[in-house]
Amino acid sequence: MVKGIGRVAPPLKVGIAGLGVVGAGVVRLLDEHADVLAARAGRPIKVVAVSARDKRKKRDMPKGNWRWYADAVELAHDPEVEVVVELIGGSDGPARVLVEAALKAGRGVVTANKAMLAMHGARIAALAEAKGAPLGFEAAVAGGIPILKALREGLAGNRIDQITGILNGTCNYILTEMRETGRDFAEVLAEAQKLGYAEADPGFDIDGVDAAHKLAVLTAIAFNTKVDFKAVHVEGIRDVSAIDIAFAREFGYRIKLLAIARRTPRGIEQRVHPCMVAADTPIAHVDGVFNAVAAEGDYVGRVMFEGRGAGSKPTASAVVADLADIAAGRSAPAFGVPAARLQPLKAAAMADRIGRYYIRLIVRDQPGVLADVSAVLRDERISIESLVQRGRAEIENQPVPVVLISHEAREADMARALKRIARLRSVLQPPTLIRIEPL
Amino acid sequence: MVKGIGRVAPPLKVGIAGLGVVGAGVVRLLDEHADVLAARAGRPIKVVAVSARDKRKKRDMPKGNWRWYADAVELAHDPEVEVVVELIGGSDGPARVLVEAALKAGRGVVTANKAMLAMHGARIAALAEAKGAPLGFEAAVAGGIPILKALREGLAGNRIDQITGILNGTCNYILTEMRETGRDFAEVLAEAQKLGYAEADPGFDIDGVDAAHKLAVLTAIAFNTKVDFKAVHVEGIRDVSAIDIAFAREFGYRIKLLAIARRTPRGIEQRVHPCMVAADTPIAHVDGVFNAVAAEGDYVGRVMFEGRGAGSKPTASAVVADLADIAAGRSAPAFGVPAARLQPLKAAAMADRIGRYYIRLIVRDQPGVLADVSAVLRDERISIESLVQRGRAEIENQPVPVVLISHEAREADMARALKRIARLRSVLQPPTLIRIEPL
Repeated sequence: MVKGIGRVAPPLKVGIAGLGVVGAGVVRLLDEHADVLAARAGRPIKVVAVSARDKRKKRDMPKGNWRWYADAVELAHDPEVEVVVELIGGSDGPARVLVEAALKAGRGVVTANKAMLAMHGARIAALAEAKGAPLGFEAAVAGGIPILKALREGLAGNRIDQITGILNGTCNYILTEMRETGRDFAEVLAEAQKLGYAEADPGFDIDGVDAAHKLAVLTAIAFNTKVDFKAVHVEGIRDVSAIDIAFAREFGYRIKLLAIARRTPRGIEQRVHPCMVAADTPIAHVDGVFNAVAAEGDYVGRVMFEGRGAGSKPTASAVVADLADIAAGRSAPAFGVPAARLQPLKAAAMADRIGRYYIRLIVRDQPGVLADVSAVLRDERISIESLVQRGRAEIENQPVPVVLISHEAREADMARALKRIARLRSVLQPPTLIRIEPL
Repeated sequence: MVKGIGRVAPPLKVGIAGLGVVGAGVVRLLDEHADVLAARAGRPIKVVAVSARDKRKKRDMPKGNWRWYADAVELAHDPEVEVVVELIGGSDGPARVLVEAALKAGRGVVTANKAMLAMHGARIAALAEAKGAPLGFEAAVAGGIPILKALREGLAGNRIDQITGILNGTCNYILTEMRETGRDFAEVLAEAQKLGYAEADPGFDIDGVDAAHKLAVLTAIAFNTKVDFKAVHVEGIRDVSAIDIAFAREFGYRIKLLAIARRTPRGIEQRVHPCMVAADTPIAHVDGVFNAVAAEGDYVGRVMFEGRGAGSKPTASAVVADLADIAAGRSAPAFGVPAARLQPLKAAAMADRIGRYYIRLIVRDQPGVLADVSAVLRDERISIESLVQRGRAEIENQPVPVVLISHEAREADMARALKRIARLRSVLQPPTLIRIEPL
């Protein structure tokens, strides 16, 4: 076809499943930026069908002359729809049925569904490839940050050795608020729920599951492996307390919930847990609801990407970027290399993690406590870099905090030591452990 | 062609012009990662010809069975070469002759040449498009950071309103060292030259020209305009002194050489100059030789990309990403939209910049100086947010620094005020002006 100003290529015809805030944002974006998008993608992108439970619900989006389906799965069989945008969510159920039906019918799929990809990513990618159907999921990880494209394409020349991410805005908001206000976890969580930054049932976010889903997807792309969610070690932020945040400050650290995937001689580590990071590193300054992903490549060195990790508009930005790629005919294998080349992930055991540790105890303020704790650590061959007992109880035998920073130690040794320390009579609460990450 | 494990697609055949550290890095990368690159790009990438002045020079790269050309331009006519990688440099001369000859012959071009793109970018992009020849220049801006791809593709759904970059590693290194050591500009520059972070002739970097070239390219992609280097307002870092860095710290700022492109009602601002940015913003923590680019999109919000902006390996990473795109058949218009749709840039005059200003004077320590200065500012309707005269000279009439921070003011008014202030008898040196940027 001759390209020229007077001639317009045929539009890419899209069906959108799910008209919540993200779906409505996609419709709005496609409407507002229709002209420039057509110029950028080489052809218009047009919504021809949508699916949502309640057709009459008021939505913040322009009206369109599209077909409505009550059952999302019917979008996969609408003969005009070339690409299905799946914004239903959930690792299984209608989202998965829709996505697989669409791909089987040779239609493209764009999805923001990290849970589904974390559980069934390798299978879905193989299906898409077998059918020659485009598959995009930029919106599934880190919202509007085009990190998947960067890993697959922009950093294609690199062996990636580590990915480090702040992937859950709710946790990062809570930890930032705790640091800035000195308040404790429960109080800040309650406020975040009021403000809409945390769900009524916040477990998915604050227990690290959402970040782990995203990490599993990132890992597969970065290391060209099959997605392996089960291999992710997951801890959330419920046990981070105001006192730990204050100590972190004193030692020159900040506490972040990091998602880390690392190539080691023992295999690939995948872990999500609270970390202490030096206060002067860039990732320590990623605050509030922002997300960030740092990648270490053997040629590029460290690159970091930061932006809004959630919300209607940033997520719509990522969905539309995938649609523009499809409209323009740009594609890359979903996990970096063809599905047949994806290796099963060889997982490094968490027990073998080597690193430094912050340990905070609440002990009875009496002579001999530190000697007991030190003896346990010595027995487990863990050496102490610093030990702080700040202040003294006004009355002997009252509880006071004690903080230890270890030199490099093995996770399994530290876990054993902590079990023994927890059993000491003068130790009044289960110890808090936060890993220190050199970044 | 049937894709399968047993079948290998024919390689993309590449000719490399210029075998300095970057060229050698590209050859090394293509060799080291040949297998995974072929999997990622769908076909191997193979160097078939090279050009460099001295064939026998020792280079840090594997030997290959390629054709050697003494004259780079001959690469454009090698019948086997599908893509020419131009790493000669310079806005005109052999680099430009080679690039235009290659494109005219319908061959692809990958280049790291920001000077050439800043001067002739629109013309070169139009030529590539007319010939259907792929054109990539990710390596020209911000080294290994895949920022051009992010703007063209990853953020395709956005209207970009502002780009803010730290685009010159030499300047950022010097400013970081000055801040960390308290030393003055000349001393740190001399050290940077010894370390190889600054050229023997450093003007190109420290006077802001290199950053301005890169900004002109970024602006064109972000705003879909023709590259307009002449419209960039350029100031370097020679006049930033240790005393300004110390005052910046006192006021909660850091000094960075920023490259800013902004959409305003008056047109597009493009400017490179030292800025004060709040010490707690992410860009203030981009230190040393690192580069960063922040983009503000109407949907994505603010995204920031950070990484190494120069050096053999990061630049090779970007060059190879472009080659992988070409090998995989991925393309996007060089400046975001087809050449015929690129608008001439409507430049906003620097005189109309509205913002806050840091002014540092060296005055004779005597009564009445501040009254004189304040009167001038009042006459130009510039209101003062704070005014600091730190310490006093031991002897009356000796020089002391005075610092003013203005409320929002218009650049032209401030320039007039400074001219008048410079003429006051008690003002002993030309005033130093640093713009304060809200980020």
